[in-house]
Amino acid sequence: MARKKKGLLLVVSGPAGVGKGTVNAALMAKHPEIRMSVSATTRLPRPGEIDGVHYFFKTKEEFDRMIAEDAFLEYMHVFGMNYYGTPKSFVEEEREKGNHVILEIDVQGAKKVKAACPDAVLVFIAPPSLSILKARLVGRGTETQESIDVRTATALDELKALPDYDYMVINDVVEEAVSEMEAILSAELLRTGRNTELITKLTGGETI
Amino acid sequence: MARKKKGLLLVVSGPAGVGKGTVNAALMAKHPEIRMSVSATTRLPRPGEIDGVHYFFKTKEEFDRMIAEDAFLEYMHVFGMNYYGTPKSFVEEEREKGNHVILEIDVQGAKKVKAACPDAVLVFIAPPSLSILKARLVGRGTETQESIDVRTATALDELKALPDYDYMVINDVVEEAVSEMEAILSAELLRTGRNTELITKLTGGETI
Repeated sequence: MARKKKGLLLVVSGPAGVGKGTVNAALMAKHPEIRMSVSATTRLPRPGEIDGVHYFFKTKEEFDRMIAEDAFLEYMHVFGMNYYGTPKSFVEEEREKGNHVILEIDVQGAKKVKAACPDAVLVFIAPPSLSILKARLVGRGTETQESIDVRTATALDELKALPDYDYMVINDVVEEAVSEMEAILSAELLRTGRNTELITKLTGGETI
Repeated sequence: MARKKKGLLLVVSGPAGVGKGTVNAALMAKHPEIRMSVSATTRLPRPGEIDGVHYFFKTKEEFDRMIAEDAFLEYMHVFGMNYYGTPKSFVEEEREKGNHVILEIDVQGAKKVKAACPDAVLVFIAPPSLSILKARLVGRGTETQESIDVRTATALDELKALPDYDYMVINDVVEEAVSEMEAILSAELLRTGRNTELITKLTGGETI
């Protein structure tokens, strides 16, 4: 029975090398109703990058205006660097259509999003162990020893933020991680707090 | 990878005729690690009933002692009637083994269980509408008109307790309801709050 619901905002974090991108891509390949959030940035487009697809490209003035208008779920600005932010409008429009939006973001960003959007679902993708994560980074063959050390140390810091997340998915076997993400999506849609309209209809004698 | 976890306590409510028993039986048939909670009662066994399987049969004195020892998740006693209760020990022992326990109980009982066991997962099985529920009761061909009217009125009262539940599963097609129960179980096991030991191991450098 068709019961059109507001889509979910899935905030996904996890250390570099854990395979967030692989898991999310596999999830999206199976579910066309899942979208990846598109960030806004003040940096210039690189060749081939399309506005509204890879990023929403903004001038510094436009970005500042959006900040003033509270148009971001979160944004980040390091002095002298480009701005990056998550526009509320894209996320909200997709969710209103019933699509789910995945937002890949670091642990600081995730906290800001949860504060701005309390019904966001926070998922942390963790490695089976720090040593396995390190081995994966080494296996890429593209990282210097220093980069690997920095990333491993950062990973430990990030893992300490795990209790702030709603769910923890261990990316051991990608297919299993994807199934777990699917279970999280399905279960979250069944939360009574997300079905207040349905409950009102049901107690009012309507068919839902 | 084997990560033995404490099983879940799934409290399942729903109006008479909604098909709770059918959904739970189908779920248990697929998952041998799910057990049905066994109640204790002071009523005498009926022919064929086995102690510890259908009920834990207790004398009035034994039941009173268990109440004094806080050995029930919830119990009910209407003056002059038999006692019924949910012993904590059975639920805890099964959960410690990693099994999930389903407790089918009314909305008052569910509230008591949630208070005694805050990590219980409360699922309400709802009909697609009150009129469909009524039609199902009529279809049984075993209920008097008066009984149907009483049950439909009770159902409406029960539906009003929906916001106290964590999840709502609409039993429209049994197989879909079973899949939804499975998603709830899978997702709940991924909650960070249920994985504090794993998180400690992971941040301590262990493989999980």
